[in-house]
Amino acid sequence: MEKLRLGALEAGGTKMVCAIGDENGTIYEQVSIPTTTPKETIPKMIAYFRDKGIDALGIACFGPIELDRDSEKYGYITTTPKLAWRDCDIVGQMQEALHCPVGFDTDVNGSVLGEVTFGQAQGKKCVMYLTIGTGVGGGIYSNGELHHGMLHPETGHVLITKRTADTYAGRCPYHKNCLEGLAAGPAIEERWGRKAVDLADCPEVWELEADYIAQALTGYVMTVSPEMIILGGGVMHQEQLFPLIRKKLKEYINGYIVTDELADMEHYVVPASLHDDQGIMGCLELARRALENDH
Amino acid sequence: MEKLRLGALEAGGTKMVCAIGDENGTIYEQVSIPTTTPKETIPKMIAYFRDKGIDALGIACFGPIELDRDSEKYGYITTTPKLAWRDCDIVGQMQEALHCPVGFDTDVNGSVLGEVTFGQAQGKKCVMYLTIGTGVGGGIYSNGELHHGMLHPETGHVLITKRTADTYAGRCPYHKNCLEGLAAGPAIEERWGRKAVDLADCPEVWELEADYIAQALTGYVMTVSPEMIILGGGVMHQEQLFPLIRKKLKEYINGYIVTDELADMEHYVVPASLHDDQGIMGCLELARRALENDH
Ligand SMILES: Nc1ncnc2c1ncn2[C@@H]1O[C@H](COP(=O)(O)OP(=O)(O)O)[C@@H](O)[C@H]1O
Ligand SMILES: Nc1ncnc2c1ncn2[C@@H]1O[C@H](COP(=O)(O)OP(=O)(O)O)[C@@H](O)[C@H]1O
Ligand SMILES: [Zn+2]
Ligand SMILES: [Zn+2]
Repeated sequence: MEKLRLGALEAGGTKMVCAIGDENGTIYEQVSIPTTTPKETIPKMIAYFRDKGIDALGIACFGPIELDRDSEKYGYITTTPKLAWRDCDIVGQMQEALHCPVGFDTDVNGSVLGEVTFGQAQGKKCVMYLTIGTGVGGGIYSNGELHHGMLHPETGHVLITKRTADTYAGRCPYHKNCLEGLAAGPAIEERWGRKAVDLADCPEVWELEADYIAQALTGYVMTVSPEMIILGGGVMHQEQLFPLIRKKLKEYINGYIVTDELADMEHYVVPASLHDDQGIMGCLELARRALENDH
Repeated sequence: MEKLRLGALEAGGTKMVCAIGDENGTIYEQVSIPTTTPKETIPKMIAYFRDKGIDALGIACFGPIELDRDSEKYGYITTTPKLAWRDCDIVGQMQEALHCPVGFDTDVNGSVLGEVTFGQAQGKKCVMYLTIGTGVGGGIYSNGELHHGMLHPETGHVLITKRTADTYAGRCPYHKNCLEGLAAGPAIEERWGRKAVDLADCPEVWELEADYIAQALTGYVMTVSPEMIILGGGVMHQEQLFPLIRKKLKEYINGYIVTDELADMEHYVVPASLHDDQGIMGCLELARRALENDH
């Protein structure tokens, strides 16, 4: 069978990664375009894809975005704090220029789709991907589909219980004690007054960080019950977090849920497996699915 | 088209409700059998259904239960504290006696299926049902299916933040601060030293209760993003809880998530709509789906 030619666009707040690849996850070429304004950035992306002869495009995008196909605003970036991109019809503009089916989802849903299609989560039915970086976001794959409810998941804003000794106020403008406000990279840096990467040798930093992440994971386990939780993002470069998170998650669940998956914690809470390509590879699969649904 | 004849079994810890009905949700007849031991109770249920000529049976069962079709223990009640029922192959025994397709899921998944198929949640894609009674349990309907991950949801055991003024220790043997341990009926009664129903006139009881429930709901909204949350169970007979929960949920979300559903809180957090028949009607649909999948 002839291979498809698929466009992949990982739309992030600082850069737009554009690539060409196929349905096996092979990436043939890739460029990175700075995210400035839609007026400037979108024509550059279109110029990149225009003569590449793609059969479909998959976009995994920073949010919040509108994913409801019945909405007039389907395919828009909506109430983002990046004001230039607010109410931007990214899907419409790409589709109009490229005349091909366009798949669209959140950045983190793209990453979980990459891991399920091409990575360590192949064959699993229910998987979560959580990124802990400048913000905290989560994607959920369930039963063959990326999960959407009234909106896509906003798992970074689940509430957690602050440690009494933690006097840091949190930096989410909406919530006093959500995961993102207390545990994203900028929160770590504001709490301890240093770059996160320079705190590598301070065990108290990662002990607290692991506690907050494990609390959130406990909630996901009780609610979504994923078969695997993949943790990515800049903060998770601190690899010492993984054993701490696993230990604390086990303590929080405290034997209430008994499954083969939880019995093998090492393979339950894991780092991303695709050398930071899970997002762009997920876009290839988003494109393939858009093409399939178009037929 | 001729109507189906469907068996429905709502398997609870105190009673087994057995009924005959059809795919429109009409219940023709119904009996209730006390839940004692499998040895005693299962033959009585079989005797009820045996000569009714049912095309399929749907069972919504107290848990935890095994729902993984690839497991040897599929169809079993597993690690329940009701020791007589531990490791009971309820599906296998019913199927062997009745020779028809058997649908099987949790009690709360049965309830959400009843509401989505026959009740107020018709047409919705993602709905949660939470019961707050002797325990707290939740069912999730998503994208046409009842949600299962590595296990069914155990949403009663999400962690919440205890109010400083609440000195009650909680009564979940596993978790210091889970919803069930702090907010199920028995917790209310132990904390305040009186029957929950006799506390109706104590506003501080329901203010605290609503806070804990709203915290849990906030987590579900951020994670699952249901289009509607249905609250049932004995504790929710205290109808003054509904406006309190809605108000607090709004405060906890604090404008971070903007959707039509949340803008209409009155229709977002709602009581069950089927006169306490959501569970047994859900069993009818479980039966219908089992028959469909069998063809
Ligand atoms: N090696 C590291 N160790 C700890 N924290 C890091 C490291 N690298 C980046 N971070 C944190 O992660 C954040 C960036 O997250 P990242 O996932 O790389 O980007 P983004 O979330 O913007 O896509 C920074 O704010 C920083 O606090
Ligand atoms: N009218 C009421 N007001 C407040 N609480 C109630 C009321 N009726 C029952 N409850 C509480 O609900 C619990 C029973 O829950 P219920 O949903 O009826 O049964 P179960 O959870 O066992 O199926 C009791 O423990 C009691 O604390
Ligand atoms: Zn927040
Ligand atoms: Zn608990």
